[in-house]
Amino acid sequence: MKHLLSIADLTAEEITGLLDEADRFADSLRDREVKKLPTLRGRTVFTLFYENSTRTRSSFETAGKWMSADVINISASSSSVKKGESLKDTALTLRAIGADAIIMRHPSSGAARQVANWVGRGTDGISVLNAGDGSHEHPTQALLDAVTLRNRLGRIEGAEVVIVGDLLHSRVARSNALLLTALGAHVTFVAPATLQAPGMEHWVNPTGATGTVSITEDMDAAIARADAVMMLRVQAERMNGGFFPSHREYAARYGLSEARAATLQDHTVIMHPGPMLRGMEISDSVADAPNAVVLDQVTAGVHVRMAALFTLLVGTEGSVAE
Amino acid sequence: MKHLLSIADLTAEEITGLLDEADRFADSLRDREVKKLPTLRGRTVFTLFYENSTRTRSSFETAGKWMSADVINISASSSSVKKGESLKDTALTLRAIGADAIIMRHPSSGAARQVANWVGRGTDGISVLNAGDGSHEHPTQALLDAVTLRNRLGRIEGAEVVIVGDLLHSRVARSNALLLTALGAHVTFVAPATLQAPGMEHWVNPTGATGTVSITEDMDAAIARADAVMMLRVQAERMNGGFFPSHREYAARYGLSEARAATLQDHTVIMHPGPMLRGMEISDSVADAPNAVVLDQVTAGVHVRMAALFTLLVGTEGSVAE
Amino acid sequence: MKHLLSIADLTAEEITGLLDEADRFADSLRDREVKKLPTLRGRTVFTLFYENSTRTRSSFETAGKWMSADVINISASSSSVKKGESLKDTALTLRAIGADAIIMRHPSSGAARQVANWVGRGTDGISVLNAGDGSHEHPTQALLDAVTLRNRLGRIEGAEVVIVGDLLHSRVARSNALLLTALGAHVTFVAPATLQAPGMEHWVNPTGATGTVSITEDMDAAIARADAVMMLRVQAERMNGGFFPSHREYAARYGLSEARAATLQDHTVIMHPGPMLRGMEISDSVADAPNAVVLDQVTAGVHVRMAALFTLLVGTEGSVAE
Repeated sequence: MKHLLSIADLTAEEITGLLDEADRFADSLRDREVKKLPTLRGRTVFTLFYENSTRTRSSFETAGKWMSADVINISASSSSVKKGESLKDTALTLRAIGADAIIMRHPSSGAARQVANWVGRGTDGISVLNAGDGSHEHPTQALLDAVTLRNRLGRIEGAEVVIVGDLLHSRVARSNALLLTALGAHVTFVAPATLQAPGMEHWVNPTGATGTVSITEDMDAAIARADAVMMLRVQAERMNGGFFPSHREYAARYGLSEARAATLQDHTVIMHPGPMLRGMEISDSVADAPNAVVLDQVTAGVHVRMAALFTLLVGTEGSVAE
Repeated sequence: MKHLLSIADLTAEEITGLLDEADRFADSLRDREVKKLPTLRGRTVFTLFYENSTRTRSSFETAGKWMSADVINISASSSSVKKGESLKDTALTLRAIGADAIIMRHPSSGAARQVANWVGRGTDGISVLNAGDGSHEHPTQALLDAVTLRNRLGRIEGAEVVIVGDLLHSRVARSNALLLTALGAHVTFVAPATLQAPGMEHWVNPTGATGTVSITEDMDAAIARADAVMMLRVQAERMNGGFFPSHREYAARYGLSEARAATLQDHTVIMHPGPMLRGMEISDSVADAPNAVVLDQVTAGVHVRMAALFTLLVGTEGSVAE
Repeated sequence: MKHLLSIADLTAEEITGLLDEADRFADSLRDREVKKLPTLRGRTVFTLFYENSTRTRSSFETAGKWMSADVINISASSSSVKKGESLKDTALTLRAIGADAIIMRHPSSGAARQVANWVGRGTDGISVLNAGDGSHEHPTQALLDAVTLRNRLGRIEGAEVVIVGDLLHSRVARSNALLLTALGAHVTFVAPATLQAPGMEHWVNPTGATGTVSITEDMDAAIARADAVMMLRVQAERMNGGFFPSHREYAARYGLSEARAATLQDHTVIMHPGPMLRGMEISDSVADAPNAVVLDQVTAGVHVRMAALFTLLVGTEGSVAE
């Protein structure tokens, strides 16, 4: 595996390989006071973020540093982009400086793949990790969700996963659906018609899906039989466009309230990729309930990103290889 | 000691323990070409700054790196706060990522203590260091001032320390008064009535103070018998509110001019937490005079922050422990 | 050598020493998977950038990290400068924190030398590296250009180097002319009269130049006999001032088009310091042609900066010493 651009590129075996690798990193770090592995010593990893993100950038930075990589952060606001440089030249420049990998977030769908085409081919090709590209994909988010889910449910195959909210622009929902269907889970999307994404009924993994996708507007029916409910972030800046009269109505119809949470099965896992808008997408007490795994997701994120960097930069024999 | 939130929490013994520890770090680094200790290898320290600060942030970053910690910087401008995330969720997220300590600056008084309540309790609690919270406290500033003072005067007990300037919003003045009174120094505040803080006559350490606090508007009388004169930063943005007709008048009445400096005793130490507004708070030649210790304060800052991180994350047997 | 402020300070022997050192670093890193030398372990290097720059800052950061230095970044937007602190106090503060070197970019010509005068003298003096000061100098850019040129042409002495574009404010052009003339190259500046710098005919190295400088407006004649053509960045924000009716006219008269590139000798090297404005300064296909060495320049930049930091902080016996 050279790049991590899209869950759609990955077979079930490759996905499982990454999840297993993440679990191995979690095991090797558990209860260690000294979180430092020599794995990537002498490797140089650039984060190149054209959109702000505390959690994703610092999760990747932590993952790199725990494996002793040199991590160098570049944010769009200080980049040569302001001087008119093309994305291609920026990426080629980072490779020429000596990057072994570029971790990239960009507002345009497909940007990470473009960069991989520019800098990732041939004998001097370096690795590109997509940390979110427009409304397209956010593969490490889906992987960390799967690690969390597998650890809680014991399995992903056959699980009923309900994904609720602003699907229209959600790279998180798409990457999750592509991953979950590859591993045999059944995904139900819940969203008002105005926040559904065109073609979302086809978000099943093209490399071979044993799971399914379906769509409904009826949240209450969907979540009653769910093994996991995944709430999405409402991109509030878009809610002013008139889909809804108010935040209050959104919360009433699509928020995970205490009353709704009470209808869940005992084992149902509640997930959110963060940052959460408490009181809107999810009520305060539900976000902090024992079956809410929001912070487990965050922790799994570091392990997944260690697994991804390790797999791309060092490689593994066996399941995960290109 | 789990957190460093407020000097008001600390006994004289705990304060002295931290000062001694800072001196030990200074000794162990003195004249070493290679400033690198393995002390915090494998520990992860986040700086979370909601207000800009070159010197405090980079002093903490240096302290962490010299002890081989992984240091990850987050500034408010790039944080999830902009997406509506609560401070609580941000802090919990950093702990879930793997922070062993959060070093935090925030415009709201009490913010660091709130964060400590959220992330710092129980078996998985992590350490919180207050790097300035609103107009409340800036404990490492007071500690570095005390290290500097003790090294110059040979003692703090019985010392006469005059603190001059914008006391109204000064976390530096408050933390200093709480520390100095705990160690038996006598603090005199000098400020115009409009820049005095309500209740400042009670800024004596609640854990047991052997020093005293008094207030005057007469700078010249106060400094004549001082062992140390500590000038505060004038928060210029507030001076437009009409306390004073002009910077010139402030400088005339409360600036440490050459003429005023000439009235000091020979041994009197001149301090300023920086950044200095030369010509306003302090005249150019006074800031650079032999008994001005502004840069010694900066150097002591790194040692104090090493001591604080070490004490919180590794602990010590003996005086400083919780 | 204590500082690297200006190519004008350097003799031909000192320049050659730095180029040789850069080549040694390139050799020692070539084909190594683990790019990490212990050379600067325990040294602390601050980057202090008052202007944004992806490539220069991250190139220096990479250079420092590959030699195991602690690198701490400060950007003007978050610095105490906003609180009114003087450049002098900022620099003195960084030294007091423990900086062994300050790498500095500043919009004012001469700023780095001023800082060196403040923090770089005496037994506790630290090193200052000029990473670009106004329209004055950018010494590591000229050094990396020379490394690239020497590797491609086999020599610099006697080479014909044509520098094209906005010379008026170009620190890159000035540093290059000072370096190239010291080593015996012949520099021809090409620019419209409105973008020529006063006195540029005197940009020959004052420490002893065996090369020459000349000026022309006729690009086509100049490049026909060039061994190297160095295109400068057009500082687009200044082009609105009315020098030119349009970007199109600039590109036509001073851009390195495919047609112009076809008139070059086979061995002619095409250079650009980046970021490139493709289609304006240089046409797309020319920027990517085999004899364009833009990315080699970037790679050489890391080696030159390693050489500079090593020379200033560790020193060398022999040619490069002060």
